[in-house]
Amino acid sequence: MTPADDRNEGPTTPKGPAAQALYLAMIGAAGPAATGWTGPPRLPAPARRGERVLILGAGVAGLTAAYELSTLGYDVTVLEAQQRVGGRNRTARAGDELYEIDDRTGAAVRTHTCRFDDGLYLNLGPGRIPHHHRRVLGYCRDFQVALEPYVMETTANLVRPPHRAEALPNRRVANDTRGHFAAMLTETLTTHDAFTAEVRDLLRVFGALGADGKYSVAARSGYLHDPVAGEPFPVPAEPLTFEELVESGFWRTSFYQPLDHEWQPTMFQPVGGMDRIVEALAHRARRAGADIVLGAEVTGIAIDEDRRGARVTYRSGGRILRADARHCVSTIPLPVFRGVGRTGFSAAFESAVGIVEFAKTCKVGWQADRRFWEDDPADPSAGAGRIYGGISWTSHDITQIWYPSHDWFSGKGTLVGAYNFEGKAGRFGGLSPRERLDAAREGAVELHPEFADEALVPGEKGITVAWHKVPYQLGGWAQWEPDREDHREAYRQLLQPEGGDVFHVAGDQISPLPGWQEGAMMSAQFVVQQILGVMPRTVPEVTTVPDSIALTQGMA
Amino acid sequence: MTPADDRNEGPTTPKGPAAQALYLAMIGAAGPAATGWTGPPRLPAPARRGERVLILGAGVAGLTAAYELSTLGYDVTVLEAQQRVGGRNRTARAGDELYEIDDRTGAAVRTHTCRFDDGLYLNLGPGRIPHHHRRVLGYCRDFQVALEPYVMETTANLVRPPHRAEALPNRRVANDTRGHFAAMLTETLTTHDAFTAEVRDLLRVFGALGADGKYSVAARSGYLHDPVAGEPFPVPAEPLTFEELVESGFWRTSFYQPLDHEWQPTMFQPVGGMDRIVEALAHRARRAGADIVLGAEVTGIAIDEDRRGARVTYRSGGRILRADARHCVSTIPLPVFRGVGRTGFSAAFESAVGIVEFAKTCKVGWQADRRFWEDDPADPSAGAGRIYGGISWTSHDITQIWYPSHDWFSGKGTLVGAYNFEGKAGRFGGLSPRERLDAAREGAVELHPEFADEALVPGEKGITVAWHKVPYQLGGWAQWEPDREDHREAYRQLLQPEGGDVFHVAGDQISPLPGWQEGAMMSAQFVVQQILGVMPRTVPEVTTVPDSIALTQGMA
Repeated sequence: MTPADDRNEGPTTPKGPAAQALYLAMIGAAGPAATGWTGPPRLPAPARRGERVLILGAGVAGLTAAYELSTLGYDVTVLEAQQRVGGRNRTARAGDELYEIDDRTGAAVRTHTCRFDDGLYLNLGPGRIPHHHRRVLGYCRDFQVALEPYVMETTANLVRPPHRAEALPNRRVANDTRGHFAAMLTETLTTHDAFTAEVRDLLRVFGALGADGKYSVAARSGYLHDPVAGEPFPVPAEPLTFEELVESGFWRTSFYQPLDHEWQPTMFQPVGGMDRIVEALAHRARRAGADIVLGAEVTGIAIDEDRRGARVTYRSGGRILRADARHCVSTIPLPVFRGVGRTGFSAAFESAVGIVEFAKTCKVGWQADRRFWEDDPADPSAGAGRIYGGISWTSHDITQIWYPSHDWFSGKGTLVGAYNFEGKAGRFGGLSPRERLDAAREGAVELHPEFADEALVPGEKGITVAWHKVPYQLGGWAQWEPDREDHREAYRQLLQPEGGDVFHVAGDQISPLPGWQEGAMMSAQFVVQQILGVMPRTVPEVTTVPDSIALTQGMA
Repeated sequence: MTPADDRNEGPTTPKGPAAQALYLAMIGAAGPAATGWTGPPRLPAPARRGERVLILGAGVAGLTAAYELSTLGYDVTVLEAQQRVGGRNRTARAGDELYEIDDRTGAAVRTHTCRFDDGLYLNLGPGRIPHHHRRVLGYCRDFQVALEPYVMETTANLVRPPHRAEALPNRRVANDTRGHFAAMLTETLTTHDAFTAEVRDLLRVFGALGADGKYSVAARSGYLHDPVAGEPFPVPAEPLTFEELVESGFWRTSFYQPLDHEWQPTMFQPVGGMDRIVEALAHRARRAGADIVLGAEVTGIAIDEDRRGARVTYRSGGRILRADARHCVSTIPLPVFRGVGRTGFSAAFESAVGIVEFAKTCKVGWQADRRFWEDDPADPSAGAGRIYGGISWTSHDITQIWYPSHDWFSGKGTLVGAYNFEGKAGRFGGLSPRERLDAAREGAVELHPEFADEALVPGEKGITVAWHKVPYQLGGWAQWEPDREDHREAYRQLLQPEGGDVFHVAGDQISPLPGWQEGAMMSAQFVVQQILGVMPRTVPEVTTVPDSIALTQGMA
């Protein structure tokens, strides 16, 4: 018996600080000052054994709810439209088929099949776990999902700024900018008081300035050459000038995203692929008694007039079936949910369902038959090479390239060849998968000339997904905007169950962390507690909603 | 046959750019502009088969030279004074015995035995590999030494500054300092030209400033509390004020060392312990024919009068033995070498041997029976917890605490409980191992109150080493000082063989990277090429020597 299996048998504090903090976190609303994380929610011992719950969608939120409710003794059935669990938690391997909706016909079509070599994989959805995402890390530990570090940034990464043709190494851009700023500030300081002497010393260390307060030797920016006559050894890089740094516009490429809280080191990834998490959740949910039905597309939801339950209609194997339950938890993404027939829902709820847009976002994955980015470059003046993980940033539509944080120093490898948003994702998504790969290759060549070599990075082994065109997903995440009054109203409304305690919306889409597995798990735990009756079902006025763009793309 | 086994059979370019670059790198001297790294040296095919080489010392340099020379067909014997290979590359495990020289008697005594639980280990010497240390990474790849990331810094790490009683999380100190500097600089900017508008925007992103150019919301510094009424969600930390940051003196704790080139991400460590490297080197050297003799303490070295070879006298098993060889490579640390009898050496060499001091440096290792630093803290106001790897800095004599970058989320773990230098290492080394552990515990408690719990961090499972007191080591590394003329002369002299091509000094002690395995390997490859005659034996005037303090402790 693992710790997770018996953690519900201890003393229960359903309205304790953890539950209250979670509740306040979920709703972003009025309440006493919270006390921070105090561990996973301690739920009451099995209470309503046999009470039937229908969960719609077997993504991270649906599987988390299924696991928790089954463990509590509920009779859980999960209806999943696709032929696999996981939703956006998807790891591509050889033979996996990719589907998108055809712009002209509106039909879902198989666009291509993953042709990676055996043993290679790439996470198409979530690809990293922040060290402060306690729920994801907690389930991984409880379920023995092995984790390894995901390297978000190495100073060997590259940036190709908007107004400069060649790519520059991260270490030069980051440290030279920092050094110039420190020197500029030092110059503004007067020299006659003690505090200023301390600040000067701090600036010297902060910016790696000389004793004169100037930034002229860029030792942190690496060594451009082996030593030459008459210079100190090793010879550091010549600093980029402040003017060329500013003119390049480098900071507009998300260059500083790794500083933002969600992406700060240490980050993790499951060994073997992100879908190890959903596999473990599904396995534990099934072991606790949950029934997970694949290929079951929900077409209608009716809340009973007496508010004692709901009836769900779904299509499975060409037939129309029905299921009844005391509670229904829908993790169906709102853009898909809008097309599901509904009866018995309030006007306020119906109005809330249509408010929030879902983000357009695309990924491209490459297989490279040699990990050339880990080697020294053929042309050292490019400044590339010795890149072990991390992300290179570019103003090209591909936005970024991720280098693998696993199977270091091995032969082949997979890379994320594009991960983009908004207008860029719209343009990319408008292309056919083949055209998208061609465009991604162009963007990649600007960072690494090796990408031009079809034998090294074969086009037929490339894969791509436009999440806003994937059937049953229709978007990357809910694009909540804190400034919008209608978003605040909709967010609050969707946190409240319909039909008393019959119908709940869940998922990262209605959590403080849209686009993150932690948000999906947080939402699932919240809804589980609402169903148990240990959380209020009426939510006070919401003062703000998550800033989805900042939480998924960084603050800048 | 591995790539390493046949890499000497290809075309040879003994005086090609790689060899020249290495040569210039070694000597820090005059020469044409070098072209950067072009791969490992390509040595000529087996040339002097059977020519006898004695290598003194089986540390990283000695084993590298033994492997390379054996592969080239030389008849290699390595004499090692200790009962193990590796030198300072040492990984402590249960049962390992630690020796230090008794200050009063001058005798080597066994001070304690490692009492870690089975399966736990800690690197007492080198503990990390920079991603640009091509020789170390190259040998690891060739010899199938598995590597994993070493996390140098996470924003969850702590700093306990000199003038502030409590420890602060890295993310608050780093990002608040950065934010205040950006805001201060923004304030000095005028607003009327385009370039300034760009700089303002760069500063906004650099420092996470508000649209008003102020630093008032510290979103990068993490969330102190779960959301509360009327504030944006999530609620970021309150910034530390600029005044309290400056007054704390935090930057004097090596806080910014992770920005320096040697410590920039990505860093690596061998899976299972750093000694996997010396095990692999020794195995490959033996397989290539080298004889490694343990327990052989060199007492005398005589260069033949005719400069055709050398005779080495050594003590082994209570007997005095002699060995003759055409070439002799000594990796014996200079402080130990000074005590070895010598005849036939030049006056210039004898004078050079005594010049450089060796660094005092101590480490302490702890076993903790629960990885409490990875959990949330009992007292959240401490700001600790969720620390996955990296280093916490303190003004206490322990200087730093390293958290393990392996076996994440497991039960027990080992930590480096002190790693200090110069005066602090002198004070620590002056204590008995038991007193040293007690002092280290006091320093650790200031960062984590859990260290006060003897049951959690048992004193009898602690280990410590003062490298400057370890027999046959007598120091951490050669403390070269670039400003000293006598250091430049000695450094040059020691790069030149004695007795024509008979006797060579090697090791990180006479390399551009003192204290680093890369320096040891670089030196070994250099001497191998001198012996082969593909490198000049006369070294031109040296313009500078490595800055050992900057290269081992960081620039500040």
